[in-house]
Amino acid sequence: MLYHNSHPSGRHFLQIPGPTNVPDRVLRAMDFPTIDHRGPEFQALGKKVLTDIKKIFQTQSHVIIYPASGTGAWEASLVNTLSPWDHVLMYETGHFATLWKKMADRLSLKTEFIPGDWYRGVDAAKIEARLTEDSAHEIKAVCVLHNETSTGVTSNIPAVRRAIDNAKHPALLIVDTISSLASIDYRHDEWGVDVTVGGSQKGLMLPPGMSFNAISAKAIAASQNAKLPRSFWSWDEILEANKKGFWPYTPPTNLIYGLSEACDMLLEEGLQNVFKRHQRLAEATRQAARAWGMELVCQNPAEYSHSVTAVVMPKDKAGQFYNADELRKIILRNFNMSLGTGLSKLAGWVFRIGHLGDFNDLALIGTLAGVEMGFELAGVPYVKGGVQAAMSYLSAKAPDWLNGEGIS
Amino acid sequence: MLYHNSHPSGRHFLQIPGPTNVPDRVLRAMDFPTIDHRGPEFQALGKKVLTDIKKIFQTQSHVIIYPASGTGAWEASLVNTLSPWDHVLMYETGHFATLWKKMADRLSLKTEFIPGDWYRGVDAAKIEARLTEDSAHEIKAVCVLHNETSTGVTSNIPAVRRAIDNAKHPALLIVDTISSLASIDYRHDEWGVDVTVGGSQKGLMLPPGMSFNAISAKAIAASQNAKLPRSFWSWDEILEANKKGFWPYTPPTNLIYGLSEACDMLLEEGLQNVFKRHQRLAEATRQAARAWGMELVCQNPAEYSHSVTAVVMPKDKAGQFYNADELRKIILRNFNMSLGTGLSKLAGWVFRIGHLGDFNDLALIGTLAGVEMGFELAGVPYVKGGVQAAMSYLSAKAPDWLNGEGIS
Amino acid sequence: MLYHNSHPSGRHFLQIPGPTNVPDRVLRAMDFPTIDHRGPEFQALGKKVLTDIKKIFQTQSHVIIYPASGTGAWEASLVNTLSPWDHVLMYETGHFATLWKKMADRLSLKTEFIPGDWYRGVDAAKIEARLTEDSAHEIKAVCVLHNETSTGVTSNIPAVRRAIDNAKHPALLIVDTISSLASIDYRHDEWGVDVTVGGSQKGLMLPPGMSFNAISAKAIAASQNAKLPRSFWSWDEILEANKKGFWPYTPPTNLIYGLSEACDMLLEEGLQNVFKRHQRLAEATRQAARAWGMELVCQNPAEYSHSVTAVVMPKDKAGQFYNADELRKIILRNFNMSLGTGLSKLAGWVFRIGHLGDFNDLALIGTLAGVEMGFELAGVPYVKGGVQAAMSYLSAKAPDWLNGEGIS
Amino acid sequence: MLYHNSHPSGRHFLQIPGPTNVPDRVLRAMDFPTIDHRGPEFQALGKKVLTDIKKIFQTQSHVIIYPASGTGAWEASLVNTLSPWDHVLMYETGHFATLWKKMADRLSLKTEFIPGDWYRGVDAAKIEARLTEDSAHEIKAVCVLHNETSTGVTSNIPAVRRAIDNAKHPALLIVDTISSLASIDYRHDEWGVDVTVGGSQKGLMLPPGMSFNAISAKAIAASQNAKLPRSFWSWDEILEANKKGFWPYTPPTNLIYGLSEACDMLLEEGLQNVFKRHQRLAEATRQAARAWGMELVCQNPAEYSHSVTAVVMPKDKAGQFYNADELRKIILRNFNMSLGTGLSKLAGWVFRIGHLGDFNDLALIGTLAGVEMGFELAGVPYVKGGVQAAMSYLSAKAPDWLNGEGIS
Repeated sequence: MLYHNSHPSGRHFLQIPGPTNVPDRVLRAMDFPTIDHRGPEFQALGKKVLTDIKKIFQTQSHVIIYPASGTGAWEASLVNTLSPWDHVLMYETGHFATLWKKMADRLSLKTEFIPGDWYRGVDAAKIEARLTEDSAHEIKAVCVLHNETSTGVTSNIPAVRRAIDNAKHPALLIVDTISSLASIDYRHDEWGVDVTVGGSQKGLMLPPGMSFNAISAKAIAASQNAKLPRSFWSWDEILEANKKGFWPYTPPTNLIYGLSEACDMLLEEGLQNVFKRHQRLAEATRQAARAWGMELVCQNPAEYSHSVTAVVMPKDKAGQFYNADELRKIILRNFNMSLGTGLSKLAGWVFRIGHLGDFNDLALIGTLAGVEMGFELAGVPYVKGGVQAAMSYLSAKAPDWLNGEGIS
Repeated sequence: MLYHNSHPSGRHFLQIPGPTNVPDRVLRAMDFPTIDHRGPEFQALGKKVLTDIKKIFQTQSHVIIYPASGTGAWEASLVNTLSPWDHVLMYETGHFATLWKKMADRLSLKTEFIPGDWYRGVDAAKIEARLTEDSAHEIKAVCVLHNETSTGVTSNIPAVRRAIDNAKHPALLIVDTISSLASIDYRHDEWGVDVTVGGSQKGLMLPPGMSFNAISAKAIAASQNAKLPRSFWSWDEILEANKKGFWPYTPPTNLIYGLSEACDMLLEEGLQNVFKRHQRLAEATRQAARAWGMELVCQNPAEYSHSVTAVVMPKDKAGQFYNADELRKIILRNFNMSLGTGLSKLAGWVFRIGHLGDFNDLALIGTLAGVEMGFELAGVPYVKGGVQAAMSYLSAKAPDWLNGEGIS
Repeated sequence: MLYHNSHPSGRHFLQIPGPTNVPDRVLRAMDFPTIDHRGPEFQALGKKVLTDIKKIFQTQSHVIIYPASGTGAWEASLVNTLSPWDHVLMYETGHFATLWKKMADRLSLKTEFIPGDWYRGVDAAKIEARLTEDSAHEIKAVCVLHNETSTGVTSNIPAVRRAIDNAKHPALLIVDTISSLASIDYRHDEWGVDVTVGGSQKGLMLPPGMSFNAISAKAIAASQNAKLPRSFWSWDEILEANKKGFWPYTPPTNLIYGLSEACDMLLEEGLQNVFKRHQRLAEATRQAARAWGMELVCQNPAEYSHSVTAVVMPKDKAGQFYNADELRKIILRNFNMSLGTGLSKLAGWVFRIGHLGDFNDLALIGTLAGVEMGFELAGVPYVKGGVQAAMSYLSAKAPDWLNGEGIS
Repeated sequence: MLYHNSHPSGRHFLQIPGPTNVPDRVLRAMDFPTIDHRGPEFQALGKKVLTDIKKIFQTQSHVIIYPASGTGAWEASLVNTLSPWDHVLMYETGHFATLWKKMADRLSLKTEFIPGDWYRGVDAAKIEARLTEDSAHEIKAVCVLHNETSTGVTSNIPAVRRAIDNAKHPALLIVDTISSLASIDYRHDEWGVDVTVGGSQKGLMLPPGMSFNAISAKAIAASQNAKLPRSFWSWDEILEANKKGFWPYTPPTNLIYGLSEACDMLLEEGLQNVFKRHQRLAEATRQAARAWGMELVCQNPAEYSHSVTAVVMPKDKAGQFYNADELRKIILRNFNMSLGTGLSKLAGWVFRIGHLGDFNDLALIGTLAGVEMGFELAGVPYVKGGVQAAMSYLSAKAPDWLNGEGIS
């Protein structure tokens, strides 16, 4: 047997920006025997999760649940709504925006990529300008990421919505929330999004293997004319089967057990409390980074991500960045913690701290201590006191005070 | 909390033809915390399962693991190897063959469906005739099911291979083994199959949510010219990432834990022993059906499935079939057992007994007793003694004798 | 790693009369992280289980929960209520009664053992006679087993109560319910029992490691003058700590999680339904034994145990019993089922079938089939049809009919 | 269902000095179905754990495993070796020594309690003096705690052994290691201990419910003449049954699964590495306390406990201690961490940090941060920098450097 927890003593700190630390309640729920996916017990469960998941997306519309990882839901959002050679406007916020663009290319869409510097989120004005220009309405969809996991930058989705509206443009708005769903406030209906893409393994606190499309009436209408070949991803049969709490093909039963439990946990805590908790832990992380004298990738405080922080390594005298992956390796070896690597053009000089999902103050301090001690061991120049700064922030904003009440 | 095991007292008998009863070893393995899918611990695990799964498909080539349920792997087998409007020869063995055909249509392939009566498997002679006719080699692929889950009929794949060879035809051979893999002997390499489609939730004893494409060198070559749009399913990036034990996007970590454990269990028992066990339990099931005076859907003993048996309900005096779904409902209510329903044209007059996966003699007898007592309660005419016949068969072929040794 | 489920394929049938098959709900509840046994979360749990367990014993009085296996609760019942050389009247119903008597001897009590033939339960008249004789009231306690696990004989506890009352004797009534609690109707208060001894690993569907003393006010009063040295087992400090939901020393936290879940399950089903279910499955077992032509150890139908059936092996022509342990070995090797052995004077010619705890019709038929096929393999003479008889009985008494309703 | 993990978001920090954080490997091992405790599978397991547990106690002799919590093993050590009114020399190191003494009194032993101030461990010279005085050898046993859980003071057991030897006294040496076993180096054989008492829920990383007596040949000899009444705790029948890997009564099967796994983990890490890890984390804890300006209960650095640190609260201007339990409550409410309370005469002005079991650097920093932020929230005067001091110590003594190698 290969142990999946063969780490050294004590609990591993999984502080990549997803998959996140799966809570015991979810793991145990998933550990129940698989049941008949056509029987009455499953039906009750199916109806429950289809209702619950809507609350997580803050939608009254429908959420499609795929037995596939997040990348699949990206594909689904495109193939259900578009036809070959449709023109799609995408926005380069970072590595994942680039991957999604690449996927759209592979799926034979005609992509247009508004360039970005990876330090900032979506500039809605550029989208507005471009759409205004497109008087022929050749652009069929605008695709943006709510939270760019590679940079820790959160874009303003309501601003994108306004940009489209200002341009009086009929394009669909398709938004990726893979690393923000159930971590950073996101409102599918209120913000007028047509397709929202989500995944299980981040704020939802589940293992990877399940993903989502929240879809508007406009998106459903679009799907009826969309010509990209599709079968597995096709919404129509799923919508039909979901009416009775079922799926057209075998659903991921045990992940659905976990989804039920995860939704219970999030709704018990209250979605707005979940968001505040993430904001508070994220700000403590940034206080630590600032105290260390480290820069963040995200240059605009209004766009700081509350789920992941991407930190820039300092430079040595020769102007070379200290190596972020060497640091991560030292931290893994010495402190049993996984951090996120810098991706594509951030590789080697950026590392990422995931602070999302089932997480709390003391686990965050442990995490930041692992980073600070890692700097020490790796010989990376830093100012002592990051952990101290985070503690000062957290104790000044203790949860007990926030809520005006203790834990019963 | 919605209990996923809120059945009445005692263990539920999940005797649909998949998902199957997941063994505790697999459930517990899946219950470990999710780890970093880019770290060294995952890498070792990734390499292990990529090696193990080849043994299950009896191939030296490569097996693609998808974080998606079985239907996804069907789609993957087509989009990776074919181009729009490619001509595909499929064979109507039953409901699932029909669904696969429908999928190929939706994916903009030109399908040709050799008609079948659902009582028999693939007639290789018809394939040979059709391919011989196709001197222009317009047919790009022949798609057949090894085991048709809706009818309990297993087709002779080596005969199909010979048919293609006899016709000297270059078409790819694509085979679905979703309900036979790790239950009925299947040999990807020896039988010259190009793409084998498999799923996690049947003989592999895992929950649904993971699926497979075992692929030949010829299939890989074909994929380089295949023009169907694809991204999530695309073999190329997966093959590349797999070289180091990783995946291009987040793999289904906890299902991979389960896969590792399931392969260990199957290889500890020995694949050939696994097949013999299924054959023995399947034959006992048929002995019971025969004793009850029931007919099977499968008309050809050489094609009896060893993983699922589809039973035809008797007719009443008016020539109407007794209702199979009413029977199933009575059995569920009274005996806490789920059986498979009759699908599409078999609906209402056929039910199916799954006897695959982590299963043994006493669980089979319990299963057959549930059916026999169900006949009694439902007022379905039957001859007493099915369970007795199965017991006679099983005790005459006791496992202890088969192996020439006891369980240590 | 030594696998604790390294049995051959499929689920093991654990049909000894305890430990019983632990349901998944209980195992999963026990799998949660251990918590602070002095904190508020534990306190709420402690109060809950202390309330729930009273319902199981059908008492309004107090139930002491020990972090020790059942034998410990035997010892506790004696050392809390008696003084060295106190005279105790016990009754030889079988092996476990004999063990308890031996324990009392070791604890320096003066035991008097009313002889029994092991084929019948307690004859209350003999107790009445003996107590009437004891005009000096030297006998301080009467100790009997409600269900003798070694023989499958259930004694009439209300009759024993009446016997004591008729004799106007002040002796305490101490009853062992280890193999009947939560399986066979038992009423601590209504039947006027002073100390009831119970264990976790049978009808309560928990692993072994926890045991109980339900205690009357009279028992508590007796404990204040009892002089046997005691500390770990002493009720006084436990009663005091229990008032607030705690224990004087570390309680078995994870077993208490399981107890909470098990009580929920039993109370959801309804205790009376639990008893009816056991009675029905027990009668089916006896129907099978009768059809095989086997005798039971229990000679008095009014005393048949509903949790365990002890079966007598037939004799060969030389008048020798066929070997019960050889049969059990063959069944374990061939059919992956554990049965109970014959104990002390029943060794070699009696085996026992446990049919208690989390159990249902189809699992029982599987169990009986294992026995019947075992007879066949072992060459033990038997009449075919035991399983058939059980099926006839069960289908005539289908649970659906009992309840007048189906499973929702 | 009452959730046993209904804490607020994120993992609870269970930093009481036991029960400790049970690792997932152990919880999952315990979650397997209970098996027949008389069958061959259990037998292999029984033999394995009986062998493994000897290594943990560093003994070649025998270790008795009780299905009972630690307090039971205290009782067992006394009732197996002593007779009523035997004279026992005990040593007041703190609350638990006092409880053990009280137990001995209740068991009708004649106890003599060498007074201690709770700030220091056993003074072996006092024992030597007392034993030398006892020329009639009336003292039958010397009972001491290796690690006094209430004070965080570890006594020098080899010195006690030498004291007895110097006095040429035949008394048995009985040592409690409940909060040191598998955390602080302890050598049953080398140190000449006769009975070592241990429990499952601390360094062994198991839930509570199992306990141990490691016993010397001299102890076994003593047990043959010991007259205290005993049955459940009696070594004789257990030793006999253990020869074949069994127990005389039902063993705690699922805890034994956990024990097997826990021993594997400890032996994989290497016992000496386990001890070094505890020492390192304990020293970091003390560095933090020192930096905060807090005093420890333990006054003698040579006796610092490596498993638990008891911290003295500072006094206010009026000379009153700040309230330790108010602090603990604030920490639980705000930071989801449980700490140990001050017991009996330490109540209200001492709190305890458990740093034993499955524990590592980052979890310790999280723990210390909870304490430091708790001081802040509770208005307890302290010097900032305790966490910083611990980090400096830990990074200077990084595990990677200790081992000269990384984690593979």
